[in-house]
Amino acid sequence: MMKSDIGLIGLAVMGENLVLNMESKGYRVSVFNRTANVMHKFIAGRADGKNIAGFENLADFTDSLKSPRKVMMMVKAGDAVDQLIETLIPLLDKGDIIIDGGNSNHADTTRRESYLKSKGFLYVGTGVSGGEEGALKGPSIMPGGSEEAWPHIKEIFCDIAAKAPDGSPCCDWIGPGGSGHFVKMVHNGIEYGDMQLIAEAYSVLKGLAGLDNNSISKLFELWNGGKLQSYLIEISAKIMSHKDSDGSYLIDKIVDRAGQKGTGKLSVTNAMELGISLNLISSAVFERSISSRKELRVEAESLLFPDGREPGNKITISVDDIHDALYASKIVSYAQGFDLLREASASFSWNLDLASIARIWRNGCIIRSTFLNKISDAYSAEPHLKHLLFDSYFKEELLDALEGWKRVVVTATNNNSALPAFSSALNYLFSLSTGRLPSNMLQAQRDFFGAHTFERVDRPAGEYFHENWTGEGGDTVSGVYNV
Amino acid sequence: MMKSDIGLIGLAVMGENLVLNMESKGYRVSVFNRTANVMHKFIAGRADGKNIAGFENLADFTDSLKSPRKVMMMVKAGDAVDQLIETLIPLLDKGDIIIDGGNSNHADTTRRESYLKSKGFLYVGTGVSGGEEGALKGPSIMPGGSEEAWPHIKEIFCDIAAKAPDGSPCCDWIGPGGSGHFVKMVHNGIEYGDMQLIAEAYSVLKGLAGLDNNSISKLFELWNGGKLQSYLIEISAKIMSHKDSDGSYLIDKIVDRAGQKGTGKLSVTNAMELGISLNLISSAVFERSISSRKELRVEAESLLFPDGREPGNKITISVDDIHDALYASKIVSYAQGFDLLREASASFSWNLDLASIARIWRNGCIIRSTFLNKISDAYSAEPHLKHLLFDSYFKEELLDALEGWKRVVVTATNNNSALPAFSSALNYLFSLSTGRLPSNMLQAQRDFFGAHTFERVDRPAGEYFHENWTGEGGDTVSGVYNV
Repeated sequence: MMKSDIGLIGLAVMGENLVLNMESKGYRVSVFNRTANVMHKFIAGRADGKNIAGFENLADFTDSLKSPRKVMMMVKAGDAVDQLIETLIPLLDKGDIIIDGGNSNHADTTRRESYLKSKGFLYVGTGVSGGEEGALKGPSIMPGGSEEAWPHIKEIFCDIAAKAPDGSPCCDWIGPGGSGHFVKMVHNGIEYGDMQLIAEAYSVLKGLAGLDNNSISKLFELWNGGKLQSYLIEISAKIMSHKDSDGSYLIDKIVDRAGQKGTGKLSVTNAMELGISLNLISSAVFERSISSRKELRVEAESLLFPDGREPGNKITISVDDIHDALYASKIVSYAQGFDLLREASASFSWNLDLASIARIWRNGCIIRSTFLNKISDAYSAEPHLKHLLFDSYFKEELLDALEGWKRVVVTATNNNSALPAFSSALNYLFSLSTGRLPSNMLQAQRDFFGAHTFERVDRPAGEYFHENWTGEGGDTVSGVYNV
Repeated sequence: MMKSDIGLIGLAVMGENLVLNMESKGYRVSVFNRTANVMHKFIAGRADGKNIAGFENLADFTDSLKSPRKVMMMVKAGDAVDQLIETLIPLLDKGDIIIDGGNSNHADTTRRESYLKSKGFLYVGTGVSGGEEGALKGPSIMPGGSEEAWPHIKEIFCDIAAKAPDGSPCCDWIGPGGSGHFVKMVHNGIEYGDMQLIAEAYSVLKGLAGLDNNSISKLFELWNGGKLQSYLIEISAKIMSHKDSDGSYLIDKIVDRAGQKGTGKLSVTNAMELGISLNLISSAVFERSISSRKELRVEAESLLFPDGREPGNKITISVDDIHDALYASKIVSYAQGFDLLREASASFSWNLDLASIARIWRNGCIIRSTFLNKISDAYSAEPHLKHLLFDSYFKEELLDALEGWKRVVVTATNNNSALPAFSSALNYLFSLSTGRLPSNMLQAQRDFFGAHTFERVDRPAGEYFHENWTGEGGDTVSGVYNV
């Protein structure tokens, strides 16, 4: 029997499309699905006449693969991955490669790589971004794990990946352990932020600037030709002009209750663990939670603002200011995301190439944009950049946008309108650029009630002092009680 | 040998002080510490002449306890608790009670209770709040777990607990599983929020309103006589007037780099899991992270605002507005915390008594205040209140404070000053009271790129639609790819 170049397990839409993508590049692919009729339907349908072999039995599936075997799992993150790995182990030979292409937690991937290494297998945890269309036509791919696996999968991964405008594939080796899944997680977090930012721009354009759907569509199209060029702005322009079957705008028919599945939350949790502020993505995650409580919001509005939200003053807001608010907030969001990557790289010794990561995201994935070229430039010029806001291009862009951005936030505040992401980005910029924050008050309080000690401005860093604030209490410092 | 009423393991400052508190109420207490010399030092020192017995050997320690034994652990949360439990099991009899008084994760406590139940033991996970002083003089206590244990520990817990102004003990049975630790976690999260809010008030009073330290101290004292009355405002007043040994104000010598230990993060993580916005506490957690990057902030300030922060316009800000901003933000923060408790109670079937929880926090703990009486009143009047902002008292208070609060946020924004918690609270209020959010845009985008489907305003809730936005693509809906 003709051996396949790669095997894929899990024929949900992403899995199917990746298989078709691989086959279209000249690779023979074996496929398996837990529920066999899904496989049969695929083989008889979209895979019909193609160089794709379906198997009902996992041993037959693994037997069909060239050595070293490359088995890609596209299954639900979590226990299903561990169970599948255990099922695969007896069917594989040492040196074979297991690839997890789902949205696994990076810590799970790190654990699995190390476990499989102990058994002689290679393990790759790879981010695959781009949704169903990306999977089919070329996703952005972020593989990490056993670096010895890279030469064996590089060709196929780079072949199926999206190509950036300069022709280079949107795929590169990320680093050890779970780094590929971590980078994909940050990508998804940034995607949450981008989507919320566009929603806020839409909200201000419609609610405060008073633009109709078609004008907003045209404006997004215009913005898509400038610094905001991105896939999400492009589809938002299409969304705003998309008509329902009855000729009305579909956007107005869509319920304002947003779902979420977890990678946004995971980015925030990881950022908190690593001590990095990701307040914009966190505001996007929480806003989705608030959005889901539709009945509560409707009732709260009638209770708090029974006569409408605007206090009656004339609203003047410029479309250019809204552009600047969106653009500057976006810079802050990416700066936070790359700050998280920088810290993860340092904490986990991943030695991430931040310029390369920005390049991988330039096409194929949901956050693709020309904007990412500028980020890549910044980290290419200075790989150890302390923070993206220290790059002269981004610093100037932020300062240019600052006054318009502030006007938007102030106008919305005065009109009782929520702009959680625009506001949190602005507050982040202000906090990060405040040499002396009021956090000395927190340290004083913590020392007052919990003897947590503090550093002094007139003593070297790392030297800690406890003040006897009340004249009472012992000489012990805080043990179990930690705030 | 005379048997002890209770035994305590772990003689850090909290443990020591709890033991002294128990002894002062007439209980005989056995103590054990992993490092015996810590125990000996305690017995020879602060415990000298008191009804406290120290043991070097854990079996002797457990032998010294009345039946059913009550063993309270005050050790570091995490593996140390599990290890100690395993060591204790063979030394105990069925029906004995193990109590964890540390800051354990509620999920760990739920797991441990169920494990120990299977072995015939009772398990209590209890929040103990109030820092070292509270532990000694009367903490706020939040016990949950095996309810059969409550009659055995109620007397001693209520005796050592703080007493509210009406004389009732700041201790009550919380509920099953890890509910006691969950409630303590939320308490600590609220504490993070309160501290950040006071720091922001201090920042505006000093930076924008131009008050000196002593005036701020006097103002906090004044506020402490009103609606903001609370332990944290009281100590902040003392902190602002506290002099260093050379006669200068100590607050100005304290480095603005705030530490944190984890319960704030944990609140945010749990809130995200339960789909509840806790954006104020999250902003407080992230602000501590930003505060820790002192060198970066100093450098960023000189880069972004080399000529100072204020754009030159005259600042007018009233002290009453700052009061209102702090007060309204505080209401929002507690509303978020109690919303999280409500959701946890529903999700985990804990049947929490929110009015009772508010009462427990009225004294002994760090967030103690008269303000909590109002929250208790709200939930006593309506135990199934959908949201604290729906209570007529709090709704009116918020509306009264709203315009001043907005002026503070707007003034700070115009002056490039960060107020992350004041701003996030305001945005939360606006979002929660917006009947139609722009989240329809998110749903449209998610359906466009990932076929995630959406609900329609003209169709029943729970019915999901996928639009073929581009005229291409298949009929499959999203599987693995989840954003």
